[in-house]
Amino acid sequence: MWEVHSSDKIRIKDIAERAGVSVGTVDRVLHNRPNVSAKARTQVETVLKEINYQPNIYASALAYNRKYTFCCLLPEHDSNAYWTVVEKGLRQCILNRSDFHLSLFTEYYDQFDEDSFSAAARRMADMQPDGFVIVPQEMEATSRFCSELRERGIPFVFLDSHIPQLEPLAFFGQDPLKSGYFAGRIFMMQAAGAERILLMKLMSKGRVASSQQAFREVGFRQYLAEHFPACEVVELALQIDEEELHESRIQACLQSHPDLRHCITFCSRAYILGEYFRRHSLKGFHLLGYDMVEKNAKCLDEGAIDFLIAQHPWKQGYNSVKALFNHVVLKRAVQQENYMPLELLTAENYIYYTADEK
Amino acid sequence: MWEVHSSDKIRIKDIAERAGVSVGTVDRVLHNRPNVSAKARTQVETVLKEINYQPNIYASALAYNRKYTFCCLLPEHDSNAYWTVVEKGLRQCILNRSDFHLSLFTEYYDQFDEDSFSAAARRMADMQPDGFVIVPQEMEATSRFCSELRERGIPFVFLDSHIPQLEPLAFFGQDPLKSGYFAGRIFMMQAAGAERILLMKLMSKGRVASSQQAFREVGFRQYLAEHFPACEVVELALQIDEEELHESRIQACLQSHPDLRHCITFCSRAYILGEYFRRHSLKGFHLLGYDMVEKNAKCLDEGAIDFLIAQHPWKQGYNSVKALFNHVVLKRAVQQENYMPLELLTAENYIYYTADEK
Repeated sequence: MWEVHSSDKIRIKDIAERAGVSVGTVDRVLHNRPNVSAKARTQVETVLKEINYQPNIYASALAYNRKYTFCCLLPEHDSNAYWTVVEKGLRQCILNRSDFHLSLFTEYYDQFDEDSFSAAARRMADMQPDGFVIVPQEMEATSRFCSELRERGIPFVFLDSHIPQLEPLAFFGQDPLKSGYFAGRIFMMQAAGAERILLMKLMSKGRVASSQQAFREVGFRQYLAEHFPACEVVELALQIDEEELHESRIQACLQSHPDLRHCITFCSRAYILGEYFRRHSLKGFHLLGYDMVEKNAKCLDEGAIDFLIAQHPWKQGYNSVKALFNHVVLKRAVQQENYMPLELLTAENYIYYTADEK
Repeated sequence: MWEVHSSDKIRIKDIAERAGVSVGTVDRVLHNRPNVSAKARTQVETVLKEINYQPNIYASALAYNRKYTFCCLLPEHDSNAYWTVVEKGLRQCILNRSDFHLSLFTEYYDQFDEDSFSAAARRMADMQPDGFVIVPQEMEATSRFCSELRERGIPFVFLDSHIPQLEPLAFFGQDPLKSGYFAGRIFMMQAAGAERILLMKLMSKGRVASSQQAFREVGFRQYLAEHFPACEVVELALQIDEEELHESRIQACLQSHPDLRHCITFCSRAYILGEYFRRHSLKGFHLLGYDMVEKNAKCLDEGAIDFLIAQHPWKQGYNSVKALFNHVVLKRAVQQENYMPLELLTAENYIYYTADEK
């Protein structure tokens, strides 16, 4: 039999005895109150260090009874997009801490417009918040804003994309290079015999619609180069704001390459292809995509998507706010780099994917 | 911009005003203290219901300052087995609640000896604990013990295996049938062309060494029957306590079936085969197994295992204690059925698997 106790903690009385001071003095040192001699403070702090004292931080923070404001900068999105799941996580973390006085304000910016990011950031910073959750935009605009936050002593957490040199308090997201490499491993297990494969890219204003998409492709092409150097990649670029052209573009691409059967995309809209296959009753196609948005899940269920790689957006949101809360409110240490799992989902296991998200 | 606040809560003063009583009366009703007239109590309770009052349960529980004892019944195991990860989760949940006075006592039983389970259960029940975490043994012994707990009003949580008709407070574990079916999907993607495959079974005292193993095989064979009815399953039974015979048994099996290349096992010791392949420098073998124990992880890294299906044992342990804590200490509602994700791990993604377990 083994035992573990949450209550094997040393009492204030024990600390006072060991330090040779009064209980009141220990209490004043612990709560950073004045009227303690330098000598007594040193004596108490030495004992606290020796015994590796863990204060009852939750109770202390509750007693402090302050209001805290957090702000969040997210890309604009429609209501059934990936980002709405992030938002649910952000929200839930605030609601789960109803013993505290927390508020979270969220603003959206245009991913392809630096000025939009800077303007939204400006509006939020003027609220004098206690912390920020930021989905980084372009390097320059993000860097400029984070420097300002650092000068003002406002901690910030990066969500989705990491820019390590800006030294956020914490980062939550997937490693896109590793993710693309992993996608290659799984995808090529099915496509091993294929001469060519289809890579569908979602574009906006002349470039791929997210940096994650671009980096995943790099990881994927690395896997291909290492294991299937002869495999040809046929690219199909679909414009995010030209939905009416998707149908004809896909059709043209499949007609010029009638042997294509294995399709991959690094955006969250694999369903564009999946729904096309369903509409035209095309059989024998294999498809790997990203993210458990509703339309993708439906395609999984119907067999129009084989695999989705998922990255726990709910947890990214939840844990980003939690990191701010732990740092700002509880004064707890926070782990800086938090890479999310690379989750492989199929029709058989996806229902359990979000089992522990609540 | 949207906002969310943890502090949109109504104050005692507002309740008193609405109910037409004093603040002191509201306080007495909220804390179940005497000296409140039946009429005043009804008035306050009506308002509380109307506004869907959520008490500050964490602070209330802290103020109550009681000691709680939980007990846990686990199968015996060696130190690098699957169960040690469960134990780490159990332990951590207690340690993370250092604001409370919690103790957890754990006893082991022999999985193949009902008397051993009943004796361990007896010893723990005599401690008068506030709750139990139980890895169920045989139906009869488990049922007998759980009936006793129910009569005595002691809540119990099942870990690993579910017996729904015993109505535990909560269950944490994988669905073994779904898990085996999923294993079939992934495994047969590689083995699609094979005439026969190898199924390695870990045996103890004449039967497979765990009920999970048996149920996963059922799910797997269902997948085979539906999609690959012609595929032959060659069984290799290894006795858990005859390690010295494993080498010759494996050798004999591979010699009688020289075309075997695709191997699967539903126990946590795929490394027995993986290490055999390494020792004999056998190439071209594919292997799927279960659970991220250290030796399996090493085989993944070295390419001797292709896939592991994992089930978050740390979270199973952590969440089982958390469910008891929420129910017993915080009086919070607890979700009963908690099926763990079916995690597919490869050499490329396994390092992120436990990212959020701390």
